[in-house]
Amino acid sequence: MKINVHFTNHHFDDMYFTGKTSVAIDVLRATTVIVTALVNGAREVIPVNSVDFAMKISGNTFGGQTILGGERNTKMIEGFTLGNSPLEYTPEIVAGKSVVLYTTNGSKAIVKAKFSEIQYICCFNNLPAIANHLCLLNKDVEINCAGTNGNFNMEDAICAGRLINEMMNFDNTIEISDEGKASLNLNKSFGKNILKMLRNSEHGKLLIENGFADDLKICSGYGISNLIPYYVSGSIKKYDAEIVNNINNETKISEDAEEK
Amino acid sequence: MKINVHFTNHHFDDMYFTGKTSVAIDVLRATTVIVTALVNGAREVIPVNSVDFAMKISGNTFGGQTILGGERNTKMIEGFTLGNSPLEYTPEIVAGKSVVLYTTNGSKAIVKAKFSEIQYICCFNNLPAIANHLCLLNKDVEINCAGTNGNFNMEDAICAGRLINEMMNFDNTIEISDEGKASLNLNKSFGKNILKMLRNSEHGKLLIENGFADDLKICSGYGISNLIPYYVSGSIKKYDAEIVNNINNETKISEDAEEK
Repeated sequence: MKINVHFTNHHFDDMYFTGKTSVAIDVLRATTVIVTALVNGAREVIPVNSVDFAMKISGNTFGGQTILGGERNTKMIEGFTLGNSPLEYTPEIVAGKSVVLYTTNGSKAIVKAKFSEIQYICCFNNLPAIANHLCLLNKDVEINCAGTNGNFNMEDAICAGRLINEMMNFDNTIEISDEGKASLNLNKSFGKNILKMLRNSEHGKLLIENGFADDLKICSGYGISNLIPYYVSGSIKKYDAEIVNNINNETKISEDAEEK
Repeated sequence: MKINVHFTNHHFDDMYFTGKTSVAIDVLRATTVIVTALVNGAREVIPVNSVDFAMKISGNTFGGQTILGGERNTKMIEGFTLGNSPLEYTPEIVAGKSVVLYTTNGSKAIVKAKFSEIQYICCFNNLPAIANHLCLLNKDVEINCAGTNGNFNMEDAICAGRLINEMMNFDNTIEISDEGKASLNLNKSFGKNILKMLRNSEHGKLLIENGFADDLKICSGYGISNLIPYYVSGSIKKYDAEIVNNINNETKISEDAEEK
């Protein structure tokens, strides 16, 4: 099994992730929000890469069950019901709903990898579950860090490093790219106390300045959920072994058909 | 003084570096080639971001004194006189010449930062001299790693980390971005034996496969030159205090004029 890490993804065209197994990471805060929303009963999360598209698919498109969430430069967007704090995604608000999510980096990173065979959503909250699942899956993995405006960010790189570290506890034959080795090293140096690391990060400091200090506590919770959210056909749902097997079988069937 | 590092630069528009002090790094091999060419007497190096443009400005444009060098995906380009191995840039071949350089990552990274107030060219060969010079200059610095096709690469990040480390020996009050902290950490973990690090890097392995193992020895030479190459108005020359002071004065004058 080979693991590749990408600190950023702005330079990829939409085809880069085609057919690959990918993992999206945006610790502060999109992937933590997605895990929280699904844990609290959201039917699905629909990540989008523009506010216009978020507006377009909201409202009655899904029978009035959609709710708009997200941020632009950490701030709430006019016309949206929710911001990008996981604390807002309570069961009372999101249960049974389709959450349409637009964020500056995270939702765009997920949409960028939309042609992945399957894309998982990871944050510290569900990292051990994702690591375990990927090892059982035993396929090459592309870890897609959202980064910040096309730049590296510390928290996503460290989360990627921790994910690889956990996977190596299951399987020590894993091959790792240079970017993966760098992630592992950063996790070893800075990842021991996740909350402290988030508070010291540039993005973490900005969130604290903007009144979101409590979000960092939620985002630092390690392995507090076993949820495995996956993105396929435009929406993120809780992992369901049966559905995913069907997707994989369909891919297999279409590959077989091509061979014939 | 603040130091910012960029592992990649594909996501920047041409204006990002405007008016800033920047340092280009492409250890394997463009910035090592540039330092070598200037040490060996090249009049200047003209980095370009397309093969077409290299062809256009070659030949008689500069009175027959140009020579085309570079590579595409580590291979020599048809119609070019030199590849991208520093070993080719001997005094016999480059002395007195304007070298037009096109490379997959390095020359493009330099052109990307073309609107810097001043841009320095750094590799391990001249790193201590650059560190010393930047500390005397005492301005905020943007370190622009070429990376590989828009991705992070290990050797440029470690070179950036070493540069920051050397600068901190002069000035321990320097402020460093998260990307700078990551570089410092990677240098500490992997930068002790530069040649070994280059041989273990993905790019280094590719060069060895393609017959350029000796290049890694040249590229790992630490502080073997005091040359300070700087890019301004489309060409890279050896640093000359008088010229650079004139440039800075002109900038100062135009800023004063704007204020009035």
